[in-house]
Amino acid sequence: MNDLPSRIHIKEEGPREGFQFEKAPIPTARKIELIDALSRVGIRQMQIVSFVNPKAVPGMADAEAVVAGITPVPGVSYKALWFNEAGLERAIAAGRIDVKGSISLSASDRFLQKNLNRTPSQQLATLHGMLHGYRERGIGLDRVTIMAAFGCNYEGDVRPDKVVGLVGQAIDVAAEHGLSIGSLSLADTMGWATPLAIKRTVGAIRARYPEVTLELHLHDTRGMGIANAYAGLEMGIDRFDASVAGLGGCPFAANAGAAGNVCTEDLVFMCEEMGIETGIDLEALIECARLAQDVVGHPLPGAVMVGGSLRRVRERIAQAAAA
Amino acid sequence: MNDLPSRIHIKEEGPREGFQFEKAPIPTARKIELIDALSRVGIRQMQIVSFVNPKAVPGMADAEAVVAGITPVPGVSYKALWFNEAGLERAIAAGRIDVKGSISLSASDRFLQKNLNRTPSQQLATLHGMLHGYRERGIGLDRVTIMAAFGCNYEGDVRPDKVVGLVGQAIDVAAEHGLSIGSLSLADTMGWATPLAIKRTVGAIRARYPEVTLELHLHDTRGMGIANAYAGLEMGIDRFDASVAGLGGCPFAANAGAAGNVCTEDLVFMCEEMGIETGIDLEALIECARLAQDVVGHPLPGAVMVGGSLRRVRERIAQAAAA
Repeated sequence: MNDLPSRIHIKEEGPREGFQFEKAPIPTARKIELIDALSRVGIRQMQIVSFVNPKAVPGMADAEAVVAGITPVPGVSYKALWFNEAGLERAIAAGRIDVKGSISLSASDRFLQKNLNRTPSQQLATLHGMLHGYRERGIGLDRVTIMAAFGCNYEGDVRPDKVVGLVGQAIDVAAEHGLSIGSLSLADTMGWATPLAIKRTVGAIRARYPEVTLELHLHDTRGMGIANAYAGLEMGIDRFDASVAGLGGCPFAANAGAAGNVCTEDLVFMCEEMGIETGIDLEALIECARLAQDVVGHPLPGAVMVGGSLRRVRERIAQAAAA
Repeated sequence: MNDLPSRIHIKEEGPREGFQFEKAPIPTARKIELIDALSRVGIRQMQIVSFVNPKAVPGMADAEAVVAGITPVPGVSYKALWFNEAGLERAIAAGRIDVKGSISLSASDRFLQKNLNRTPSQQLATLHGMLHGYRERGIGLDRVTIMAAFGCNYEGDVRPDKVVGLVGQAIDVAAEHGLSIGSLSLADTMGWATPLAIKRTVGAIRARYPEVTLELHLHDTRGMGIANAYAGLEMGIDRFDASVAGLGGCPFAANAGAAGNVCTEDLVFMCEEMGIETGIDLEALIECARLAQDVVGHPLPGAVMVGGSLRRVRERIAQAAAA
């Protein structure tokens, strides 16, 4: 027995993270193929597209076609990302998308400028507009994301107290619209976090806002993704974003060639081996990771799809012993 | 402040791990080039060759030539690996090698058979012979390694109490020769460990033998290397083996294509970012990692050499602010 959570909830972000990031165009049919494969491994939440400006993110120009083309699996919640009301309208119009209210704040003003081309006051105005829109449509506020919560390639280190301040700001802004925040995601957008930084920032938020449910969105830019996830588990966090095969990266974050999100199958492997349930079939997920490599046409950083699961090794040993 | 160690000691194993593992022959001069480059980054201990049967490990047939060709840097201890008295004799004859007594036990009998072609009783006899040889030469027993301490591809999971038993056996065998063990290295030879397994096994050894200094030798076969190192740090372990760029793998361990040791520069990055001193110049080490890739002629798994250090990013931000 130990103090780690007994079960975690993984939101698969590979399709959205990966397809927005890849330089070469990926045929819509192949995007659909991967999403449909991922729908059958036990994943319950999957972010499949962004409704953003196709000029800024050409890889997401076919978002509506992707949504129309998938074969939805009952029990899987298909999610999308948007940053303004126009994106929200597209998400609703697309159908099939589980539209829940979400807003994003940035712990770095310069990243906000580079990534969304907004000043903090413009961002605040946008958030008010989005919250007003959610309220009007009877959509709750499901998730607040704090981008660059551990550091920024344009602004440097981010102190935990700045993040705590933003959590308070998010709670206040939501309250102005009669909404409470569902869960709060700390995004290590540019791969600055270490396990110690995870514990410090999570601890600082817990000290001030113990009622907030925290999630982690980790990038593996400098190889810390799995260690950071472990630090999160040790803090009791049980909600993680992850990306099959480690698909993705941030196109605006000046990390050319660097790895994307923490790899889903590596995270599932670690958790299952530590007795933490994920609800995901690791062997089937590893097949999806290999499919993802085939879809993008180049090697992806996932380790378990190369090293293999231990369940298979244990089965082989048991068979040899029985023979 | 936190309970992590304030400083760690890294033994670089890339030359030995990598050159024994690579399929294609590497020219002796290029091995020397990498060892000499690594000698200048602040590494204090480096295992550079194995004195083993050249028929079993062709990549180490030039071990004597490598040792003769390096330019030793004062303050750097150059180490070698051997598994019998003949190997020890070669290490002493080669000169320049910091010959310290070491013995290896295996937590898996089947791995011992596959890796060294010995039964447990043959291994015990070999250990007695080696300890006798150390005693005769006035060499202490510097290090005991327990191979496959977390699991084995031929035998399966390894329970912590089995490892605790082996620690006791090592202490007893050494005592028969009037020797005490220096430090004890837990080797995750085939990449079975998780952070929780590290804590369990280290905790079990500490409970029974609190006087033993522990080291970790981690393989990154399934992407857990850095997370496992972090778990070790949280247990107060301050001695780690690591391999530049993640060079290596175990040629006998049935993990074809899988990653080698935990990557030195990724480990240094994590530690330095968490305020733990390593004594190593990360930027110079990253250059060595790129050299290692060039020497072996294919991409290696290190992440920080792709994602870049944060010191460089902070410098760029400071320069921009000053301009």
